[in-house]
Amino acid sequence: MRATAEANPNIALIKYWGKADAALNLPVTGSLSLTLDTAPTRTTVELDSAIADDELVLSGVAQTGRSLERVRRFLDLVRDESGSTVKSRVDSVNLIPTGAGLASSASAFAALAAAASAAYGLDLDDRALSRLARRGSGSASRSIFGGVVRWFPGDDASSFAEPVDSTGLDLAMVVAVIDAGEKSISSTEAMNRTTATSPFYPAWAESTTRQLDEMLRAIARADFTAVGELTESNSLRMHATMAGAWPPVRYQRAASIALIDAAAELRAAGVEAYATMDAGPNVKFLCRPVDADRVEAHLAATDPSARFLSARAGEGVRLVDEAATA
Amino acid sequence: MRATAEANPNIALIKYWGKADAALNLPVTGSLSLTLDTAPTRTTVELDSAIADDELVLSGVAQTGRSLERVRRFLDLVRDESGSTVKSRVDSVNLIPTGAGLASSASAFAALAAAASAAYGLDLDDRALSRLARRGSGSASRSIFGGVVRWFPGDDASSFAEPVDSTGLDLAMVVAVIDAGEKSISSTEAMNRTTATSPFYPAWAESTTRQLDEMLRAIARADFTAVGELTESNSLRMHATMAGAWPPVRYQRAASIALIDAAAELRAAGVEAYATMDAGPNVKFLCRPVDADRVEAHLAATDPSARFLSARAGEGVRLVDEAATA
Repeated sequence: MRATAEANPNIALIKYWGKADAALNLPVTGSLSLTLDTAPTRTTVELDSAIADDELVLSGVAQTGRSLERVRRFLDLVRDESGSTVKSRVDSVNLIPTGAGLASSASAFAALAAAASAAYGLDLDDRALSRLARRGSGSASRSIFGGVVRWFPGDDASSFAEPVDSTGLDLAMVVAVIDAGEKSISSTEAMNRTTATSPFYPAWAESTTRQLDEMLRAIARADFTAVGELTESNSLRMHATMAGAWPPVRYQRAASIALIDAAAELRAAGVEAYATMDAGPNVKFLCRPVDADRVEAHLAATDPSARFLSARAGEGVRLVDEAATA
Repeated sequence: MRATAEANPNIALIKYWGKADAALNLPVTGSLSLTLDTAPTRTTVELDSAIADDELVLSGVAQTGRSLERVRRFLDLVRDESGSTVKSRVDSVNLIPTGAGLASSASAFAALAAAASAAYGLDLDDRALSRLARRGSGSASRSIFGGVVRWFPGDDASSFAEPVDSTGLDLAMVVAVIDAGEKSISSTEAMNRTTATSPFYPAWAESTTRQLDEMLRAIARADFTAVGELTESNSLRMHATMAGAWPPVRYQRAASIALIDAAAELRAAGVEAYATMDAGPNVKFLCRPVDADRVEAHLAATDPSARFLSARAGEGVRLVDEAATA
């Protein structure tokens, strides 16, 4: 059997930062994201009884080491459920491969979950697929769904994502890709250090739970301004929590701050744009689709060396091909 | 009577951020600072029974409004203690007036406390002078003393500063003055908003109390690296606490972050420099005197538009003139 699936990245408006259970990828808090309509990952899983162990090819390059091990462990979960012992070849590409800054473990494990579960003959509903994707990468649970998506904390059974009705809200995202210079620490290490050493972590968890509730209310009344202000505040609080770690974790570079300031300038000029950052220097701006060009133009004037990607709300994971093979 | 006093600015290594009592300027936590040997404020207080109310001249310009009211309220405290009702002329200048970024209410109220108490005939010891200066501006309590200074929280009687023995530690500070662009919010408003709205504030207060204890131990063993790391961490945590406020308070500009990153580069190259920021975009770097030129050179290469001021540990407040007048 062979199956191919595509999944899009998602950007959290209310962030996931900190695991309650590292093995199961259970989050400390709920989170909420927007699935984008760009930069999908396309992944094919093909069972092959002739190979001794799973193989992984990323963008045409055969993988070894940690990324291969991570995929093998994930496929073991699928095999456990299907009863199969057959190994697979996994071939994965990012359809916008040119370093758009959105290549993410979220789209990767959402696509892998869909392709692998289909190839191994599991008949999973979206909720089960979200739980499975979560085991690969926490935020992948959200890329199963399109548009605005909420991921619940809980136990292995209850921690899944589901779509949130955002009728009346038309959301766009302008992604500013910054030339970061030196490499920062990995998001997993940053997350672990933050939860272990930041004096702000407990307050972060409480605050995020509160802001998620406020965000859901703001979405329900289609209050774009409140959605944006909560997005920017939650991101600043996450990075503040990291700055409190020992040693400090700082993903906000000078260029990031200049762009966050540029969003404030846009708002002062009547154009609503709200900045959010993840475990890297890039900055994503939530705005209305009608404002996206003006937002990008002002950001580009602020940082002529940045590259930009403009996105709208995108769809969830989809199976694009499924076939019995020889 | 007429008296003239000089006082130097101080830079907190463990920050004062948040009042337990706004009227008495009692801090939530203890703090610790280095008094600098530069940018002193020189203030003359001259009693004049012929004037109807206190007058204030700052750098040659007669003041009205809030700064005058603040000085009048301060002189009322001195008169309450002295039994006098005579009004005064206050003349104050910063001896390095060219926007060095260090003009501070700390040096201003330390100099005013010393000059006014002498002019009104109060015989205050340093501790009483520190308590008095505190009423004008919290951090002024620290500029009464030279070198490394600790300010205690407590009640009106017990909240004063005192010098800390820093034998074996030779400290320098390179101040980077950044062209900030737009004016940020005042430190008082920022402090109030932070204590009222940041979910991180309680953890900030606990963390600062802990870091002050660690700092005192690091100073006692003359451990420059630990002093520097605590300095940088405490500053990052203060600004993190502000970023958590609603609306967020952000004093870290892009240029500030670039300079903080430059300090990390210096450390990676074996030169110890640690960044600290207060309620503004400028960045101060704690380093060894022998490294100050190299620190300044690297910072200047990072931000050619910044101006620099290099300082060592300076002395406390001093009376430079006292005379009976006609």
